[in-house]
Amino acid sequence: MKLNVTAQLNYVVKSASTIILNIHALKTADQQVLQETFTTTPEVKMEELQNVGGENRFMRLDITQPCELTVNYDAIVNNAYKIIDHRDTKGIAMADLEPAVFPFLNQSRYCQSDKLYRIAGHMFGDISSPFEQVKALTNWINTNVLYLSGSSNAQTSAYETVTEQAGVCRDFAHLGIALCRALTIPARYFTGYAYKLNPADFHACFEAYIGGEWVLFDATGLAPLNGMVKIATGRDAADAPVSNLFGDVYGTGIKVNCELIEGDFKSYFYPKNRFEGITYL
Amino acid sequence: MKLNVTAQLNYVVKSASTIILNIHALKTADQQVLQETFTTTPEVKMEELQNVGGENRFMRLDITQPCELTVNYDAIVNNAYKIIDHRDTKGIAMADLEPAVFPFLNQSRYCQSDKLYRIAGHMFGDISSPFEQVKALTNWINTNVLYLSGSSNAQTSAYETVTEQAGVCRDFAHLGIALCRALTIPARYFTGYAYKLNPADFHACFEAYIGGEWVLFDATGLAPLNGMVKIATGRDAADAPVSNLFGDVYGTGIKVNCELIEGDFKSYFYPKNRFEGITYL
Amino acid sequence: MKLNVTAQLNYVVKSASTIILNIHALKTADQQVLQETFTTTPEVKMEELQNVGGENRFMRLDITQPCELTVNYDAIVNNAYKIIDHRDTKGIAMADLEPAVFPFLNQSRYCQSDKLYRIAGHMFGDISSPFEQVKALTNWINTNVLYLSGSSNAQTSAYETVTEQAGVCRDFAHLGIALCRALTIPARYFTGYAYKLNPADFHACFEAYIGGEWVLFDATGLAPLNGMVKIATGRDAADAPVSNLFGDVYGTGIKVNCELIEGDFKSYFYPKNRFEGITYL
Amino acid sequence: MKLNVTAQLNYVVKSASTIILNIHALKTADQQVLQETFTTTPEVKMEELQNVGGENRFMRLDITQPCELTVNYDAIVNNAYKIIDHRDTKGIAMADLEPAVFPFLNQSRYCQSDKLYRIAGHMFGDISSPFEQVKALTNWINTNVLYLSGSSNAQTSAYETVTEQAGVCRDFAHLGIALCRALTIPARYFTGYAYKLNPADFHACFEAYIGGEWVLFDATGLAPLNGMVKIATGRDAADAPVSNLFGDVYGTGIKVNCELIEGDFKSYFYPKNRFEGITYL
Repeated sequence: MKLNVTAQLNYVVKSASTIILNIHALKTADQQVLQETFTTTPEVKMEELQNVGGENRFMRLDITQPCELTVNYDAIVNNAYKIIDHRDTKGIAMADLEPAVFPFLNQSRYCQSDKLYRIAGHMFGDISSPFEQVKALTNWINTNVLYLSGSSNAQTSAYETVTEQAGVCRDFAHLGIALCRALTIPARYFTGYAYKLNPADFHACFEAYIGGEWVLFDATGLAPLNGMVKIATGRDAADAPVSNLFGDVYGTGIKVNCELIEGDFKSYFYPKNRFEGITYL
Repeated sequence: MKLNVTAQLNYVVKSASTIILNIHALKTADQQVLQETFTTTPEVKMEELQNVGGENRFMRLDITQPCELTVNYDAIVNNAYKIIDHRDTKGIAMADLEPAVFPFLNQSRYCQSDKLYRIAGHMFGDISSPFEQVKALTNWINTNVLYLSGSSNAQTSAYETVTEQAGVCRDFAHLGIALCRALTIPARYFTGYAYKLNPADFHACFEAYIGGEWVLFDATGLAPLNGMVKIATGRDAADAPVSNLFGDVYGTGIKVNCELIEGDFKSYFYPKNRFEGITYL
Repeated sequence: MKLNVTAQLNYVVKSASTIILNIHALKTADQQVLQETFTTTPEVKMEELQNVGGENRFMRLDITQPCELTVNYDAIVNNAYKIIDHRDTKGIAMADLEPAVFPFLNQSRYCQSDKLYRIAGHMFGDISSPFEQVKALTNWINTNVLYLSGSSNAQTSAYETVTEQAGVCRDFAHLGIALCRALTIPARYFTGYAYKLNPADFHACFEAYIGGEWVLFDATGLAPLNGMVKIATGRDAADAPVSNLFGDVYGTGIKVNCELIEGDFKSYFYPKNRFEGITYL
Repeated sequence: MKLNVTAQLNYVVKSASTIILNIHALKTADQQVLQETFTTTPEVKMEELQNVGGENRFMRLDITQPCELTVNYDAIVNNAYKIIDHRDTKGIAMADLEPAVFPFLNQSRYCQSDKLYRIAGHMFGDISSPFEQVKALTNWINTNVLYLSGSSNAQTSAYETVTEQAGVCRDFAHLGIALCRALTIPARYFTGYAYKLNPADFHACFEAYIGGEWVLFDATGLAPLNGMVKIATGRDAADAPVSNLFGDVYGTGIKVNCELIEGDFKSYFYPKNRFEGITYL
C-alpha cells in the first residue's frame, strides 16, 4: 500500500523561538519512506534530532526573527502490516516479559494506571484472553466516551476521561492505554496519519502488547485500522506531541491529508467475535 | 570515598509472584561497585534485566511458591563527584539543547510541569541564572513543604504537593522536578543511598540539567549532598521505583544502611550566596 | 424502639482552642431524645449553636487552657421510621420539585455530581424508576468499592472514589449522593449512630429524595437500616462533621456505642426484587 | 444611587425543559427594587421560588414545547452601601463567631479550603489584621492569576486556579473565598450586575466576614466596587448559578447591561495603604 501524506502547519512567531515537530513518517522495517520533503516558508535553520529516547523523528526549527511561518511536509510511504489471530494468545507472565517493554507498563502523565487498577479489574479483569480484554475495553470506551471537540484540552488525562467520558482521539487513546496497563498489559501511544479519517487530521490510537506483538486499537472507531502511517509511539502524548513550542509563538492552523496512491484498499475494522489483531512494525 | 550500602527487604508472598527491585548501586564512570552480593531467602529464580530504557539496574525475582521472602543487598561502592561553580552558567537555548535531554523536559506522571508553568514563572521566572533558579525553588520547597510521614502516598504528585505542601522525600523531589521543567530546565528523579540520612532509608532527590551537567538538589535538606550512592535516575518515581510487585505479595519491612568505610567525610550542603553545584556521573 | 447511644471523644489541647461537635441525636417528629447528658472533663465553657443553616445540633466548646479533654455524650432516644413501597413512584419533574430540596441537587465539595453525569447516565440512566436507580447505584457501590480503613482521608471525594474504588462509609455515602444528583435525584448526607454496626463507630449513609420522602440507603451494607439514630443531614460531610477543631488540638480516640434498650429488633436490609424504602423523619 | 439593570438570555429548547434563573436583583434593607419586569418570548409558565436555602431569588421556567426562548429582565434598583474603616478590626475568635456564619467557613465544591490551608498560611498567615489578610490575598490573585476567557470552565475550582493561575471572574472569586476560609475567615460568593464592567456581563466577586460585616472584594479589579447590584450570595457558584438547565436545552447568548440613572458616581477601588471596606447589605 502506497500512501501520500501531507501536513501544513502555520505559526505566528512573535520573537525568536524554537519549534519541535514530530510529523515525519517513521522509518521501520515495514514502513518505507520512499520520498519526503520538509520545507518552511520563510526558510529557517532546522535539524532532525537523533536519540530523543526512541525512534521518533523530531525536527527542531530555530526561528530567529518574527515571522508568519508555514511548515510543509509531504511524503510517499510504502506501508505494510500484518494481521495475526490472537484467539489462543495467552497473557505474558511478568516473569517472562521482555525488559524493553517494561516502561510501557508504567503509569505516565496522561495514563495514571496506578489509579485505575480497581476500576479496570472490576470491568475487564474476568476476561482471560488479553486480546479480548483490550477489545472489550476499547469497545467500552467507544460506547461510553463521547467524541466531542473542545471537551478536553492538552492537560486532560485518562483519570478525568474515565469519569467525565468526553474527549477527542488523544483522550480515547490515553484511556485505552491506562486501562491496559492497569490490567498489566503493556500499552503505548500511537500517532499517525490515517487514511479515510474524516475530517482529515493527525490521529491518535494505542498499541497493546499481546503475544509479543504491538497490536493496534482505535477506541474512536473513526478510521480504518489498515490505513495508518505511523509517526511516533511513546508512553503517552507527552512523548509524541505533534509540536512543542518554546518562545512567543502560537499555531494558527493545521491541514493534514492522507491519500492512497497505489494498491487496493478495503476498510478494515476488527470484526466482532473474531480475534484478529493488526500490527504495524 | 568508599561506602558500604546494605538493604534488607521483607515480603510475604501468598502465591506465585514477580518482584522487580531497583536497589542495586548504579555503575558509572565515577561510581564503581567494588563488590556486591544480592541474595534471597529462600532462594528464588532471579535475573538482572538489561535494557529497561536506561542504565538502571532492575532485578527480577520469580517466586513460584508462597513464602516469607527476605532480600539482602550488600555492596561496597567507590564513589566520586565533582563540584562546579555555576556562577556564570547561562540557560541553554532550546535550539542548542542535546536531544537526549529532551525527555526530561516532558511532563510526567508525578511531575505535571504543564500545569505549573504559570506558578513557576511567577515565583522564579525573574531569576536569570538557571542555577539560582533551581536553588531558589529548592529553598522554597524546603521552607514551605512540611516533611511529614504518612501525609502522602504512592499516587501523590507535584500538582498536589505544590498546594497541599506536605510530603516525603519523593514528593519533595517530584515538586522540584516539575518546577524545573515548568521553567524549561530539564530535570530528573534521583534515588540512592544517602550517608548520614537519619533515619536511614532509601532517599530521593533530583538533578537539574545546568550548563551541560546534571546537578544534584535535595529539597528535604535531610542528607549531605556529598554522601550519595546513586541507584537510579528517571523521569520520576514511575521510572525508578524501589520495588514493583506483581501478584499476591506485599512488603513487611525495609532496612537500609549506608556507612563510610574509607576516606574523610565532611558534610556538604550548598552554601548560601555561592553557586557551587555537585554532580555525580 | 428505644436506643441508648453513647460517645466518648478524647482530645489533647495544647493551647486555647475551640471544638465544634456534631454528635447529639437530632430531635425530629419521629425521633425523641428522652434524656441526654453531655459532659466534659475538665469542664469547659460550652454552647449549643442554633441556626447553623439547618436543624443539626452543633455544640461549641471553648477551651482556654491546655489539657487532656474527654467529652462524653449519653442519650436515650425513642425512634421510629416508616417503610414505604416505591414500586410505582415516579421521578419528580424539575418543574414540580419543592424549592427547599434544590440545594440537594447541587454539586458539593465531596459530591462533584457535575463531573459524574455521563458516567451515572451510562450506568443507571436507563432505569426508569427512581427507587430502582438508587438501589442499583447503591448495589454497584457495594460491589465495586472496597471498604478499606486508611484508603481514604478527609479530603477524599466522590470524584476519586468512583475510579479508585476504595474508602470508608463516608466515601461510600459521598459517591452515592454524587451519582444520585448526577441523575437529577436530590440526595443528602446522613450521619448517625447505627445499632449492630461492627465495629461500633459513627456511621455515614445517604438519603435520596424519592416520591417526596427522604429514603435511606447505605452502600456499605454494614448496618441494618432500621437501627439508625440520626445525628445530622447535610449536603456532604462538610456540613455534618463529627468534629471541627480550631487551634492546637488533636483527637486521640473515639468510642461509640449504640444499644437497644426497649422494643424488638429484627435486622432489616432492603430485600432484592422489592421496592421498600425506609424513611426516618 | 439608582441603577437600571437589564439582562437578555436566549435559549434553544429542543423538548420540554425546565430552566431556573438567578438574575433578579436581591431585595435587601439597602437595595430596593423600585420596579422590575421579567418576561419571556414565547410566554411560559414561571414561578419565583421561595425558600431555596437563602434569600436568593430563583425563577423557575417550565417550557413544555420546543421553541427559541428569549428571557428579558429589566429592573430599577435603588442601592446603597457603607464604607467602614477596618484598621483596628481584629479577627473573630471561633468561640465568638455567630453560628449563622459557620457554613461560610466550610470547604465547598469550588472552594476546597481544606486543601489550601498550608499554602494560605504560608503566604498570608503572618498578617495579623483580617482586613489586610484579605486585601493581600486579593492582590496576590490579581497579580498572579491571568484573566483569560476560555481558560476555565464550569468545573474549574480554586484548587486548580491556585496553581494553574488563569480564569475568569468566577474563578478569581472562588480562589479568594477558598484562601479566606483556609485562614479561618468566613467568605461567600457574590454575583451581581456591575456598573462600568467592560465588557458588560454578570460579575462575580466575594465577600469576607470581617468585624461582623460582609466586606466586598473583587480580585479581578475589573469593576468599581461601588457600582454593584447584588443578585445572590452563596457558598460558591453552585449556590448562585445564573442559570440551571434541565432537559434538552442550551443557551445561545447573554446580554447584560447596567446603567446609572440617578446620583453621582465616582469609581471607587480600595486605596493602597488604607483599610476601608465596602459592605452592601
